[in-house]
Amino acid sequence: MTEQHKPAVSVLGLGAMGTALAEALLAAGHPTTVWNRTPARTDPLVAKGAARAADVGEAVSASRLVLVCLLDHPSVHSALDPAADRLRGRALVNLTSGTPAQAEELATWASCHGADFLDGGIMAVPPMIGKPGAFVLYSGSRDAFDAYRGTLDVLADSRYLGTEPGRAALYDTALLSGMYGMFMGILHALALVTADGTAAGEFAPMLREWLDAMSGFATSAAEQIDRADYALGVVSSLAMQATGFDEFLDVARERGVSPELLAPLGPLLRRRVADGHGHEDITGVIELLRTGSAG
Amino acid sequence: MTEQHKPAVSVLGLGAMGTALAEALLAAGHPTTVWNRTPARTDPLVAKGAARAADVGEAVSASRLVLVCLLDHPSVHSALDPAADRLRGRALVNLTSGTPAQAEELATWASCHGADFLDGGIMAVPPMIGKPGAFVLYSGSRDAFDAYRGTLDVLADSRYLGTEPGRAALYDTALLSGMYGMFMGILHALALVTADGTAAGEFAPMLREWLDAMSGFATSAAEQIDRADYALGVVSSLAMQATGFDEFLDVARERGVSPELLAPLGPLLRRRVADGHGHEDITGVIELLRTGSAG
Ligand SMILES: NC(=O)c1ccc[n+]([C@@H]2O[C@H](COP(=O)([O-])OP(=O)(O)OC[C@H]3O[C@@H](n4cnc5c(N)ncnc54)[C@H](OP(=O)(O)O)[C@@H]3O)[C@@H](O)[C@H]2O)c1
Ligand SMILES: NC(=O)c1ccc[n+]([C@@H]2O[C@H](COP(=O)([O-])OP(=O)(O)OC[C@H]3O[C@@H](n4cnc5c(N)ncnc54)[C@H](OP(=O)(O)O)[C@@H]3O)[C@@H](O)[C@H]2O)c1
Repeated sequence: MTEQHKPAVSVLGLGAMGTALAEALLAAGHPTTVWNRTPARTDPLVAKGAARAADVGEAVSASRLVLVCLLDHPSVHSALDPAADRLRGRALVNLTSGTPAQAEELATWASCHGADFLDGGIMAVPPMIGKPGAFVLYSGSRDAFDAYRGTLDVLADSRYLGTEPGRAALYDTALLSGMYGMFMGILHALALVTADGTAAGEFAPMLREWLDAMSGFATSAAEQIDRADYALGVVSSLAMQATGFDEFLDVARERGVSPELLAPLGPLLRRRVADGHGHEDITGVIELLRTGSAG
Repeated sequence: MTEQHKPAVSVLGLGAMGTALAEALLAAGHPTTVWNRTPARTDPLVAKGAARAADVGEAVSASRLVLVCLLDHPSVHSALDPAADRLRGRALVNLTSGTPAQAEELATWASCHGADFLDGGIMAVPPMIGKPGAFVLYSGSRDAFDAYRGTLDVLADSRYLGTEPGRAALYDTALLSGMYGMFMGILHALALVTADGTAAGEFAPMLREWLDAMSGFATSAAEQIDRADYALGVVSSLAMQATGFDEFLDVARERGVSPELLAPLGPLLRRRVADGHGHEDITGVIELLRTGSAG
């Protein structure tokens, strides 16, 4: 490796994700200090060259760039609060998943303690960290992002969404929500084909191919939404889709598979058809999701 | 075009899909006869060289290969029943979406009338017909499939699933169910990001990229299911996922987006965690979908 200045980084939290982050930083030659509530989890990283911090204060003091990847928002405060007075002048990057409101709260808290704050949403599972295809959404301090982008890029492709601290969490939440919908469909489909003894592994490659072929719906639906024109470029009418949908659920029921994961779509399709939108695309269902107020 | 024997084909039903099928056959040089309940829909195809059949009987008699693509199973019978005595010795290929039971019923009915029967599930939207990426699942008569595969390949990549007539419909239903899950996730995600005025088109490419990156869940989940080992290669524990999930729904509610499309997953995640499966993958939720009987 060429001798080069690599910023020191502290990583707080060595669950599946924090460990992957610390490993990527070590592999890229960054001086890396690690801390975890259960200290034994630091051992494998120390064996790879990381410095072990005895407590959070020591971890925070060790680097000007502090990454936090804990279970949830309460665990971030329970870890960081005792070391708040060490944060001044550092960049605090929170990679713990949370809500936009939680990110905003942490941004305010960090700024009170003199730290530059970035909130990040990791769009990857741990084995993807440091590999092509992974990306992390960031929002918050532009200065912190610009100063440490090179280091953050070691983890994954870094995408900056602006200074609003809650923005990355909002996008993260929306992307994960989309993923959970896909997972719900995958689980239902696999339950259906395995109900009569077919091996899931025989069917799965076709399912994946089909989902990849149909993910373009995200793009075509977005265009219809932005133009508020759900009839734009319709190739499968809502009326035709509504006709088939309830039957899909019956096929599942007949085979002893509960259709509960997909069931909520049926009434929305029927309502749109009843309201005279049968010739449009399925996208118009979005109108029925907009309650316009806390529901 | 080189002079070559191309089998004659009749297409019954000229909705969005039937029209695409007939156009692909004409473009490939097949003598094509078309019929539609509303006759005006034959005009554009006749202008491209198709023969117009005055009624279903004439359409069936015109070709040894008869493709049917109507709205649903009842419409297939209402169209074909009056011409049943013309079917003897022909290959009847039903490309109308339906249930496995409906495909089995049609197979029996067709065989009583002396026709070879294939049921097909079209995995494409009309603009994809005749283009790479589209595929059609077939099951039923092996003879019919072997005899006409070359012609069927004009429509899309043909995949034969065996002689059981209901198999293609089962796979079709499972693939479409998986797709609807993905669509539910996409609609929820787009509702969420547009609730505060973001253009859907700005977010959609990232959503698509993320869904494509995560569709591999179909393959890893299938392996866990086939081995009945939901702890196999876990990278995101169910406990961690369950922690975040309810918060995602709260973020939606706070922004005036009804979480009803994703909500059914929450209780299943919590039940699996409560039952001691928190260290496993989300895949184990499939156990809760298996009711083992009609529900
Ligand atoms: N894994 C993924 O696929 C993935 C993907 C994207 C984002 N994320 C996000 O990354 C974060 C970490 O996920 P993970 O998979 O690493 O989870 P994990 O394996 O369950 O690890 C959780 C970590 O949080 C620590 N922790 C929990 N409660 C704590 C508390 N009260 N005080 C201090 N530390 C506490 C744990 O410490 P102990 O070792 O002492 O228990 C452990 O280090 C989560 O916010 C998750 O949403 C994960
Ligand atoms: N479009 C897609 O994206 C897609 C994808 C895969 C599979 N499919 C399947 O392909 C089939 C056709 O879909 P499509 O998109 O072409 O639907 P469509 O555009 O709504 O067309 C429906 C067709 O069915 C005919 N029809 C309806 N009821 C009838 C009856 N009682 N008797 C005779 N004809 C009747 C209509 O005739 P009129 O013109 O007289 O109304 C029309 O030709 C469906 O089973 C669908 O599930 C469609």
